[in-house]
Amino acid sequence: MSSCYGKLLRLSIFGQSHSAAIGMSLDGLPTGEAVDIESLQAFLDRRAPGRNAWSTARKESDIPEFLSGLVNNVTCGAPLSAILRNSDTRSQDYASLRTLPRPSHADYTANVKYGGYQDVAGGGHFSGRLTAPLCVAGGVCLQILARKGITIGAKIVRIGSVTAPGFDPVGVTAADLAEASAHTFPPEAEEAMQAEIAAAKAEADSIGGVIECAVTGLPAGLGEPMFDGLENRIAQIIFGVPAVRGLEFGTGFAAAQMRGSAHNDPYTVESGAIRTTTNHHGGILGGISSGMPLIFRVAIKPTPSIGQPQQSVSLERCETDELIIKGRHDPCIVPRAVPVIEAAAALAVLDAWMEGHH
Amino acid sequence: MSSCYGKLLRLSIFGQSHSAAIGMSLDGLPTGEAVDIESLQAFLDRRAPGRNAWSTARKESDIPEFLSGLVNNVTCGAPLSAILRNSDTRSQDYASLRTLPRPSHADYTANVKYGGYQDVAGGGHFSGRLTAPLCVAGGVCLQILARKGITIGAKIVRIGSVTAPGFDPVGVTAADLAEASAHTFPPEAEEAMQAEIAAAKAEADSIGGVIECAVTGLPAGLGEPMFDGLENRIAQIIFGVPAVRGLEFGTGFAAAQMRGSAHNDPYTVESGAIRTTTNHHGGILGGISSGMPLIFRVAIKPTPSIGQPQQSVSLERCETDELIIKGRHDPCIVPRAVPVIEAAAALAVLDAWMEGHH
Amino acid sequence: MSSCYGKLLRLSIFGQSHSAAIGMSLDGLPTGEAVDIESLQAFLDRRAPGRNAWSTARKESDIPEFLSGLVNNVTCGAPLSAILRNSDTRSQDYASLRTLPRPSHADYTANVKYGGYQDVAGGGHFSGRLTAPLCVAGGVCLQILARKGITIGAKIVRIGSVTAPGFDPVGVTAADLAEASAHTFPPEAEEAMQAEIAAAKAEADSIGGVIECAVTGLPAGLGEPMFDGLENRIAQIIFGVPAVRGLEFGTGFAAAQMRGSAHNDPYTVESGAIRTTTNHHGGILGGISSGMPLIFRVAIKPTPSIGQPQQSVSLERCETDELIIKGRHDPCIVPRAVPVIEAAAALAVLDAWMEGHH
Amino acid sequence: MSSCYGKLLRLSIFGQSHSAAIGMSLDGLPTGEAVDIESLQAFLDRRAPGRNAWSTARKESDIPEFLSGLVNNVTCGAPLSAILRNSDTRSQDYASLRTLPRPSHADYTANVKYGGYQDVAGGGHFSGRLTAPLCVAGGVCLQILARKGITIGAKIVRIGSVTAPGFDPVGVTAADLAEASAHTFPPEAEEAMQAEIAAAKAEADSIGGVIECAVTGLPAGLGEPMFDGLENRIAQIIFGVPAVRGLEFGTGFAAAQMRGSAHNDPYTVESGAIRTTTNHHGGILGGISSGMPLIFRVAIKPTPSIGQPQQSVSLERCETDELIIKGRHDPCIVPRAVPVIEAAAALAVLDAWMEGHH
Repeated sequence: MSSCYGKLLRLSIFGQSHSAAIGMSLDGLPTGEAVDIESLQAFLDRRAPGRNAWSTARKESDIPEFLSGLVNNVTCGAPLSAILRNSDTRSQDYASLRTLPRPSHADYTANVKYGGYQDVAGGGHFSGRLTAPLCVAGGVCLQILARKGITIGAKIVRIGSVTAPGFDPVGVTAADLAEASAHTFPPEAEEAMQAEIAAAKAEADSIGGVIECAVTGLPAGLGEPMFDGLENRIAQIIFGVPAVRGLEFGTGFAAAQMRGSAHNDPYTVESGAIRTTTNHHGGILGGISSGMPLIFRVAIKPTPSIGQPQQSVSLERCETDELIIKGRHDPCIVPRAVPVIEAAAALAVLDAWMEGHH
Repeated sequence: MSSCYGKLLRLSIFGQSHSAAIGMSLDGLPTGEAVDIESLQAFLDRRAPGRNAWSTARKESDIPEFLSGLVNNVTCGAPLSAILRNSDTRSQDYASLRTLPRPSHADYTANVKYGGYQDVAGGGHFSGRLTAPLCVAGGVCLQILARKGITIGAKIVRIGSVTAPGFDPVGVTAADLAEASAHTFPPEAEEAMQAEIAAAKAEADSIGGVIECAVTGLPAGLGEPMFDGLENRIAQIIFGVPAVRGLEFGTGFAAAQMRGSAHNDPYTVESGAIRTTTNHHGGILGGISSGMPLIFRVAIKPTPSIGQPQQSVSLERCETDELIIKGRHDPCIVPRAVPVIEAAAALAVLDAWMEGHH
Repeated sequence: MSSCYGKLLRLSIFGQSHSAAIGMSLDGLPTGEAVDIESLQAFLDRRAPGRNAWSTARKESDIPEFLSGLVNNVTCGAPLSAILRNSDTRSQDYASLRTLPRPSHADYTANVKYGGYQDVAGGGHFSGRLTAPLCVAGGVCLQILARKGITIGAKIVRIGSVTAPGFDPVGVTAADLAEASAHTFPPEAEEAMQAEIAAAKAEADSIGGVIECAVTGLPAGLGEPMFDGLENRIAQIIFGVPAVRGLEFGTGFAAAQMRGSAHNDPYTVESGAIRTTTNHHGGILGGISSGMPLIFRVAIKPTPSIGQPQQSVSLERCETDELIIKGRHDPCIVPRAVPVIEAAAALAVLDAWMEGHH
Repeated sequence: MSSCYGKLLRLSIFGQSHSAAIGMSLDGLPTGEAVDIESLQAFLDRRAPGRNAWSTARKESDIPEFLSGLVNNVTCGAPLSAILRNSDTRSQDYASLRTLPRPSHADYTANVKYGGYQDVAGGGHFSGRLTAPLCVAGGVCLQILARKGITIGAKIVRIGSVTAPGFDPVGVTAADLAEASAHTFPPEAEEAMQAEIAAAKAEADSIGGVIECAVTGLPAGLGEPMFDGLENRIAQIIFGVPAVRGLEFGTGFAAAQMRGSAHNDPYTVESGAIRTTTNHHGGILGGISSGMPLIFRVAIKPTPSIGQPQQSVSLERCETDELIIKGRHDPCIVPRAVPVIEAAAALAVLDAWMEGHH
């Protein structure tokens, strides 16, 4: 395992789906930053399970207990740590996973890597549940960034075959991001996306999607190329979020089909500030922020836990066997992943901000 | 700058497009590994400029001088270092870039970050030329991995609107990879792709593309989740390659449109080995290699240096101004980026391999 | 703050003297390693406060709660995390420290660094109490190392003016180390050392000392020069232990007075193994273990918290003021620091061992 | 090997004693900093060999060629890299070392670690010659620090049995440090120290010593406890300098014999600034600079290369054998190590300064 991330801001995530608790330590935060517990909780609730039809039935209050790092809810320089107790665990549901790995889960690869000693209950450390402490850490960073005028928001732009428009790459505002974060689904596509999920669920199946994330208010000059540029940092943490299969910045894969004359973003001056008239570059050039909105999209695969019978292999008998997954699971994790992507982006951006301001 | 990469294998890249030399130090290589200079040079020649119609006219021999780390061409434990002299530099072509930044280049962002002190000649440290030392380092890793039965190869699967099929994600072999690497373009699409590039060039324009990379022979169990998993490591280095805008593993963004029942890869047993019958997961589950071929795709933007007049902003006068790029440049960097992607993948995989084998 | 340590084994320590809890996450441990909770507790009890005349009167049970990383008390690959609740806190004793810093404590430097936001209660994150989670982490490492035949032990070799002999640098055995760890003071000097402490305590004063640590069973070949050699790794963690002022390996500072002919350790063969007939090098040559016992000594300053009135400066009024420290404190922390040094050494050695065995 | 150091300032050292060249890359330097090549060369000349009676007879011009990182001798943000060609190599002198290791050198431990593939010529990467690129990097840092009012200087305080006083820990000034650095030996002890070295040389022997280093002008508040505090950072790099056996800060090991009432440094106010009336703490409290002069001492062992016959072991025959070292070597490396300690301190301090100023 290497559940540590960051250079000046160092995150350590710990816990398993069914361990006594999950948690995190976040070392290196600036001091004197108030943590608004109530709005943090509201942020965490966007990720919490058991709240609606497209989420697992597992109930967890997901209220973090802060153990250190705060004096009167203000950061004091010591590492910020918090834990969340696991309560609604049904480990017996997972007993068979040690020998009959679930397709497209980490059961098999973890078994090879950890020699059979891995915690299989609930997926252990590979569980999506580990994104809860990531959201605690990132949620605090979001508050700190907001005070610097930097806002991060994400929205669903695809569920299966249903799409919704992304942010305006040139004109997106902090208000747009706040509005987007206030909705689980984009209002104009909400019905269709929920129907897409319901259809998958009805067939004991799951469905994937795409999330777009934007950052506004980011000053130009952040990011350390070649290998700690903004893309590298964001990529390193985003690919630590379970189920992520792809990541693109700005125009992304579509840029591969474009001519330079169309993809290049002309410079202009607005109110004395240098900007670009289009934003195919997604706010990053040469690994460094340009001052334009930072835009990236993340592809999320369909939840591998489905109710249909699947073909697996018995690791004991080394022959194929049918697997019926019990446990509880989400037909679509994309809605719950939206705040996770925001949290991950906040950690990457704040770490880059800190390195860029010395 | 942070042109360092890796944990047990530590790469440092240095140099600017027009500095005395560019080079790299690669610390932590296993000892006793022979470096076949001739085949390394053949590998580097795939990236070298000035060889054909779709490459810059700049001529560089790109023959590395190894300064340390070898005894009789065998790794000795000391950091491996090599330099490549810059010879064909025309710095006068770039004098205006300090005040008139090229759209979609790092000229402007570097100017903000480095306070105007950055080396603008030839793009400085942001030049694609810095991929030459990356290829020296990665080329040595490719040779070491090959001795472990691990083969890496990449191919162009898109140039503009012209596509070519990727590797067979289940059945791809080392021989397939060697065959792919032997061709600049996929034979079946070579003519169309070259025509696409020629068309762009004829209009003083450029064109983007997509590269697919595969790794065969990778044992199951490599990668350290959550944040040093195989995707995280590959992503961190791949986004350090200039012009990369997107990265996807396995089925990638297309997975967002799939149901779990279709995307999940059933396990099976072949000759006593556990494999999957499909490979949507791209050889990585939970950040850990599964033993199936590792597959990823990289989106490359169209070269921002084009011959057409473009709108920029004078940093001195803070008003828009027309820019005519002189210098020399590639109408399409995708062909030359193929070995760079292979080299980057080799560095990531060997580093993960070293951590996974303790 | 940067309370993270290690490369393949990554320790994060969190907590303050009077926060809800203190704790640690230890990421990267080998799997399948049993944690003997009972013997770990015995190890922790050697450091725990409130047990005897030379320790603070603060009472803490110091029983760690493991939150994650274990399945049936066996390491599972996920980060090992544990917390210790703070119970016997008297924060009111420390209210004045924010404005009247204690000499030779971190009160003043923390105030400058953290802008007055630091937690002053009990010394905050600078408290010796933070060595408790260090001992939890290191105590687990000691158990893992023991199974590899590597034993670590430490002893007091000086309290003020009273000295005791160190280990036999050539012939020290695992049994010698176990014997040493079983005693708080070296038996032959126990009475004199306790008297030295009692004399200081009687005058509301404190006293320093020196601890010697030895590692037996370490195979030759561990350590990564130039900057991750064994000395570098041990030094980085040992200087993270509060009150450490010096560190020397082998003959150490005394080597400065020696001729090479006397300091050089002749090689010999014993039972087919290459050894040295003397061990001035302390088991490390060029940053790499030689197979001889690893020996180092650590200088511990007298506890800065003393009962006598001291001259400080009011940070509010910027003028000198008399300080009377209330709180509770140890007249000599050397006895309690012995297991801390063992724990720190275990973390450094296991991390080096892991990197050396890939 | 792990010849990389630093967090925001990343040093990579490469080369072997007899490789084509040795060199370094220093990534992360602030931009806009002029490098005064002439005064850098004067600094390097203090370390260069072949200049006097107590140095090896090997002649090397040791003039670095800067390859990158500078535009008109001003740092440009790209990694600063420099190489020094090796010219006066006599590799035949070292042929026997692969099988007959020199006592107290790294010959044996490197042979175990690198499986016999290590470069034995001139000690390979373990040679004191690798301190030349360290001095290039550190020499540049010294110039940058000087512009911030931070001065670093070191002096010899012991050669064998001859001692000289250290710096005044409270009142030392930048001028004192410049004066100290201007002399190879402290004037008052020069004759006795040279006689001590000459006496060792006359008997084909070598002699050790102690170097004291001081830093003035360091603002309070630098250093990241627990494990990236100033002591930890300085220790990690200082123990990467060959032949270092001990390190102490402030009063160091002598503090172990002191009472707290004597060791504690009373605070006072001078010209509105908070200072201490004594400086036993050596300018660091809790890992953070206090604003008082930073003071540390380094123990250097006697050069292991001596002319007298020594007992070694034939690695081929696994039996003892007599070794006569040919090669060229210093009877005392302490004088040449003084600028190396200054350079190492400068790298540690500038890295801490950069992290402390964001």
